[in-house]
Parts: sequence; C-alpha cells; structure tokens
Amino acid sequence: MFGQILGKLIEDLKRLPGIGNKSAQRLAMFLLNMEKEQALQIADSITLAVQSYRHCSICNMLTETDPCFFCSDPKRNDDQLCIVENTQDVFLVEKTQEFKGRYFVLNALLSPLDGVGPAQIDFPKLKKIIQEKEIKEIILALNPSTEGESTINFLVDKLQKYSVMITRLSTGIPFGGDLEYISSLTLTDAMKRRYEVRQHQD
Amino acid sequence: MFGQILGKLIEDLKRLPGIGNKSAQRLAMFLLNMEKEQALQIADSITLAVQSYRHCSICNMLTETDPCFFCSDPKRNDDQLCIVENTQDVFLVEKTQEFKGRYFVLNALLSPLDGVGPAQIDFPKLKKIIQEKEIKEIILALNPSTEGESTINFLVDKLQKYSVMITRLSTGIPFGGDLEYISSLTLTDAMKRRYEVRQHQD
Repeated sequence: MFGQILGKLIEDLKRLPGIGNKSAQRLAMFLLNMEKEQALQIADSITLAVQSYRHCSICNMLTETDPCFFCSDPKRNDDQLCIVENTQDVFLVEKTQEFKGRYFVLNALLSPLDGVGPAQIDFPKLKKIIQEKEIKEIILALNPSTEGESTINFLVDKLQKYSVMITRLSTGIPFGGDLEYISSLTLTDAMKRRYEVRQHQD
Repeated sequence: MFGQILGKLIEDLKRLPGIGNKSAQRLAMFLLNMEKEQALQIADSITLAVQSYRHCSICNMLTETDPCFFCSDPKRNDDQLCIVENTQDVFLVEKTQEFKGRYFVLNALLSPLDGVGPAQIDFPKLKKIIQEKEIKEIILALNPSTEGESTINFLVDKLQKYSVMITRLSTGIPFGGDLEYISSLTLTDAMKRRYEVRQHQD
C-alpha cells in the first residue's frame, strides 16, 4: 500500500527513540506534506551534523571542534572533573550553572545484560587525565539506576588509590515529588540522608 | 553551548510535529550517537522520499507513481468515491478493508482562521471526476471537527445538483469510550442516532 520509498523512510524513522510504527508513518507523511525546501533542509542538517561531530579526544563528548568547547576553555577549573554518562548529560549539568570544572564522558554505563563490561569504560583515558591534571574532586554525575550504581561502585574502587575527593549527586525526593509515589528505596535513602534546615541554637 | 551545526539541526528538527525543544535535543543527540552509517541513511531516506513524492494528477494523494496505486488499480470500484482530508487518511480508511472504491484527497479543510477558503478546495477537479465517471456514492470521510463540518456543508451544497448519494462516516461514541468523558455534543448526537441492536418481534 505504501510505496517502496515511503516504506523505507518509515522503517528508517522507526530507528529513532520513541518512534513506533504509527509515529513513523505520521512523521513521514508530515515530511512529504511540508514544503520540499524545508524537508530537504532537515535531511541536510542531519547529514551535516552526523558528518561533523566526533568524540573529543580529551573528554569523549560529541563535538564539532576537537578539543571540545569545554576542554579548550581556559577559564574552566582544572581541579574539578565531572563524570557523566553521555554528551546530553554535559548540557544538563551546564544548565544548572553549578559547575565550572571539566567533564569526562563515559559513553557507557556498566550493564552486563547489554554486554557492557569494565572494558567498555575508558578508564585508562580517565586515569591519564587524573595523573596529568591536579584534580581535587571527581563528581560522579551518573543516574542512580542499577547501571549507574554499578558504574559508581566500579569507579570508586578503581579510583581508591588516587588522593582525590570523590562525590556523587545527592539522592532523595525530587522537588514536586510525592512521598506516596516515591519508591521505598528512595524514601529510605531520603530518611537516612535527611539534612538540618535551621541551625540548632542552644 | 551547542555547536552551530548541532544548533541548526535542533532548530530544524523542531519543525516536526510534536517535537519541542527537549525532544529535538534528544533526537539530535541520538542521531549523533547512532552509527554514522544508519544516521546518514535516515537523512538519505528523507531526501529521496521528499524528492520522489508528488500529488497524484487524478486524486491528489501523495504518490511515488502518477497515477497513484489506487487510481491505476483496475480492480477498484468506479462507482464509489471517498473524499478524505489527506494522504494519511487514505491509508487509515484502507486499513478498515471496508472500502474498495476510489479516493479523492482535498489536502485542505475549510478554515477561515487559517486562511483556507473555498478557493483552496479543488472543487473543479472533483467536479470533473464526478462528471466523467459514473459515481453513485460519495463518502465524506472527514473529521467531525469545526473545519471538517464546514467542509462537509460546503461540499454537500456544491454537490446538490448532481444525482449522487452523499454519505458521511457515522458519528457517536468511540468503542472503548466512556459516557463520562464524552462531550455533550457527541452524546446528544449518539442519542439521536441510536440504532436498534435486535429486531423487534411482535
């Protein structure tokens, strides 16, 4: 019923995250209904971006220039290193405006079921950075998921012999969250890690 | 923070339906993280499809071949014509397997606010089909929305002088729907258009 070319486009669009059969059909028809010029522009942008981006030779993030924007900025602190899972997480941390140090992108979290073991974590590269720069704090900004926790444990173990402070993002109840819908694991952690809101006065 | 090329890709992706800023960033990063070969394939598929598709010279649907699959199929009934808003609706009607006639795609619904008036409805082309083929029934398979209803009224008025049966899709409560969440307009219509489920026996 669909032509061959349209069928191929739909199949290709289904590779995108969160795009099932129906969404792919809808997207494809939208592209065909758009002004040709604009639709071709989208295809060209994808091609250009895919061909232009590579991993930063220092921190592994996806970048147009090598070294990346963050690694080549002389104003960033060299004594703090934030380890994230992927490039998008770099942008998310940046948005908080709470961090002015350097980044290191793992591009993987330990996940035996998906075949990601310690060999897929580029620890040698991380080790080189720690040895060459005078890093005082390593922030493990990884998801508190099974894979994230495994990776945190792995990295903490590997980093043990270096005299550097290792921190992780605070865990607890998100703002706007509701105790009723929070997992008991999170609530237990939040209870244990409760913090004083007013200094006690004697 | 984003490079220029990535920024442009994100802006371009935001033209797609249902893709806001966050989704566009997520899609863009996904494309850059994919195998280059596959990501380029998506761009190529878009380009090829956009360049290959045009409107069928008979029914207006988007097609790789002209006339389209449906207009060139000798096995379809010539005495039924289904009028739909767009090409995607053709596929949706086809999926019901309830219709074996011909299609006519308006590619527009009357919407004065969006600047779509009677001039944008290709009635002359529709008139030509009605005059040339011996059509017995015209099915107006348009959404029962404000724009759809206006278009239905407009077409019914224009088609008055032709001796052809004009029908529209049944309106009412969708299967799986709930009286509580149905608009009173729909419920009023459903009440008026109720149908007997068992033949009355005397």
